[in-house]
Amino acid sequence: MTEKIARFFEERRPQTPCLVVDLDVVEQNYHALADALPDARIFYAVKANPAPEILRLLTGLGSAFDTASVPEIEMVLAAGCTPDRISYGNTIKKEADIRRAFELGVRLFAYDSEAELEKISRAAPGARVFCRILTSGEGAEWPLSRKFGCDLPMARELLIKARGMGVEPWGVSFHVGSQQKDLTQWDRAIFEVAQLFRELEVLGIDLGMINLGGGFPTRYRSDVPNSQAYGQAIFDSLRRHFGNHLPETIVEPGRGMVGSAGVIESEVVLVSRKSATDRKRWVYLDIGKFGGLAETMDEAIQYPIEVLGDDGSDAAAEPVILAGPTCDSADVLYERAEYRMPADLKAGDRVRIHATGAYTTTYAAVCFNGFAPLQQYCI
Amino acid sequence: MTEKIARFFEERRPQTPCLVVDLDVVEQNYHALADALPDARIFYAVKANPAPEILRLLTGLGSAFDTASVPEIEMVLAAGCTPDRISYGNTIKKEADIRRAFELGVRLFAYDSEAELEKISRAAPGARVFCRILTSGEGAEWPLSRKFGCDLPMARELLIKARGMGVEPWGVSFHVGSQQKDLTQWDRAIFEVAQLFRELEVLGIDLGMINLGGGFPTRYRSDVPNSQAYGQAIFDSLRRHFGNHLPETIVEPGRGMVGSAGVIESEVVLVSRKSATDRKRWVYLDIGKFGGLAETMDEAIQYPIEVLGDDGSDAAAEPVILAGPTCDSADVLYERAEYRMPADLKAGDRVRIHATGAYTTTYAAVCFNGFAPLQQYCI
Repeated sequence: MTEKIARFFEERRPQTPCLVVDLDVVEQNYHALADALPDARIFYAVKANPAPEILRLLTGLGSAFDTASVPEIEMVLAAGCTPDRISYGNTIKKEADIRRAFELGVRLFAYDSEAELEKISRAAPGARVFCRILTSGEGAEWPLSRKFGCDLPMARELLIKARGMGVEPWGVSFHVGSQQKDLTQWDRAIFEVAQLFRELEVLGIDLGMINLGGGFPTRYRSDVPNSQAYGQAIFDSLRRHFGNHLPETIVEPGRGMVGSAGVIESEVVLVSRKSATDRKRWVYLDIGKFGGLAETMDEAIQYPIEVLGDDGSDAAAEPVILAGPTCDSADVLYERAEYRMPADLKAGDRVRIHATGAYTTTYAAVCFNGFAPLQQYCI
Repeated sequence: MTEKIARFFEERRPQTPCLVVDLDVVEQNYHALADALPDARIFYAVKANPAPEILRLLTGLGSAFDTASVPEIEMVLAAGCTPDRISYGNTIKKEADIRRAFELGVRLFAYDSEAELEKISRAAPGARVFCRILTSGEGAEWPLSRKFGCDLPMARELLIKARGMGVEPWGVSFHVGSQQKDLTQWDRAIFEVAQLFRELEVLGIDLGMINLGGGFPTRYRSDVPNSQAYGQAIFDSLRRHFGNHLPETIVEPGRGMVGSAGVIESEVVLVSRKSATDRKRWVYLDIGKFGGLAETMDEAIQYPIEVLGDDGSDAAAEPVILAGPTCDSADVLYERAEYRMPADLKAGDRVRIHATGAYTTTYAAVCFNGFAPLQQYCI
């Protein structure tokens, strides 16, 4: 945690639960990614954290933006960004929303099906399109379903079709899965994309862009490769499969841009046992699965959690089960994951949940159990 | 679906996605529950759907309310209910919130641990308390973790302690799990509670109340026993284990009160396949897991879904995978559950998701992917 965040908590003593994001860290992350991938254009995945302060900062730094909906496009425009730096990256769009985005000046659209291509050709004539392909997502911590993308033969057909439909087949995208720690996953996908580029070249379709998606991780409880390592692996792979004829590359970091910039402070509401002989205590926080920590689903993302005032020595720490404050029995954060907390932990103590800058505020439920959504401060 | 809801959709043609709740059905459900359990007092579980119209209706009908937080207590009071009809049923409460509830006139509190009892004794002196015990939750469709309740020996100790701490040990609560279809689950719990009552009676503690919790189901895709059957099973069980000395009983229906009263209308955003040979189509709706259908988690709750304009004959229906509109790969509704839809289904078609009056609006995320929370109309 940065000194700036520590000072904010100390001086402001905000009501819990709340998230504090250090914009300096976002800026450092932007530069680290830009340095690691000097030839790639960065499209920040707005869905990770659409705070106006973050969008304004990244606009100023020259970032482009990957958006999932018209409201996200409007947020980016409101931050002062021009529409030529916006990608409408959701492969699932209402035709009216494509039209609205086109009216707002957006000229770059994702698709992975014929029906979507037809919508784009009607509602955004002349726009650039990129086709998303399926990848396995092996090695990613956040599950990647088959929801997005199509297989390679279908992508080939869809890119050929695009040419005949008044839109510009500009490239291919894939996503290796969020919080991807296996660097070889990019290589596998880049190899397949390079083959597709060559097949289409033969047919006179020169694709110009490869969208490498996101997947850049945040450090949670265990180490992850740094940006430099990702950049090197991706660059090597591009050289290996494309030679000297490198396409334009796009990356869409979300978690990798803002995850490490945020810390949530939460209050312990209750510490209890279920029976006199219970080995594990239950620790209930004032934030849970429905208040912003949705990514604890199936204990997928395991945030580092610090107890305030604890010196960190594990001597007096005992295992705990962590749960949220709602009356929903599914609102349990960590039961199998081994979290330990001081033996004298009690209601009123505060904890800090680190690396929570991404995928927290927007996941919070409107008013589940009457609890307000997660409050955010960008400093 | 009721005629009133059908007419509303036809005349108003609301923007999708939206939930329409027929208040007449809520009223019918209230009467059916009251008739089926004539000796029980109904505490509506506000978390299921806190719409002001629903709270006002139930206040007028004489219902009491089970609340999870101070904002929920305030919503019930704003609906015109008096605080003597409110239970603060969450076993996880900040001491400041207990104090606030007490100031607002609430005199009934749940607990399942010594630390919580201490908070209540300090912040709500003289209040009535009930201790929640653990049950297995077998047979429930929505998972019941060990998050709430303590074991029987601990409950015994906690009720004895309450007497010495200036609060009134008034009863015991349990919950058999939401959408509970196994009627014998109540009998097992009531048997245990009756034993506990007798043990405490010997010590001079006369408990007066048994809180049977919720669990009353809504009909989704398969049949469930009706209210009458639940009432009979519970009454028989109470007689069997308590004889003629029946305690006061409380029930806390949420899903059973409002689930069947609501219908969500949603638009098909995209129909596609992942490859030319894909057996199952992917159908993407404009509502998903983060827009209100959180209970599709692990495909736990399977809503009946009707395609508008489909005559219901299965002749032309083909299997589909259903997913939401966000860029989150976890936003898939049903992949293993067998849903079928017409072969000619296309973007722009509308579907109605039935029995969605409970646990939908409040679960909706604030603004995930830029999508607005679920809009609700109570008619």
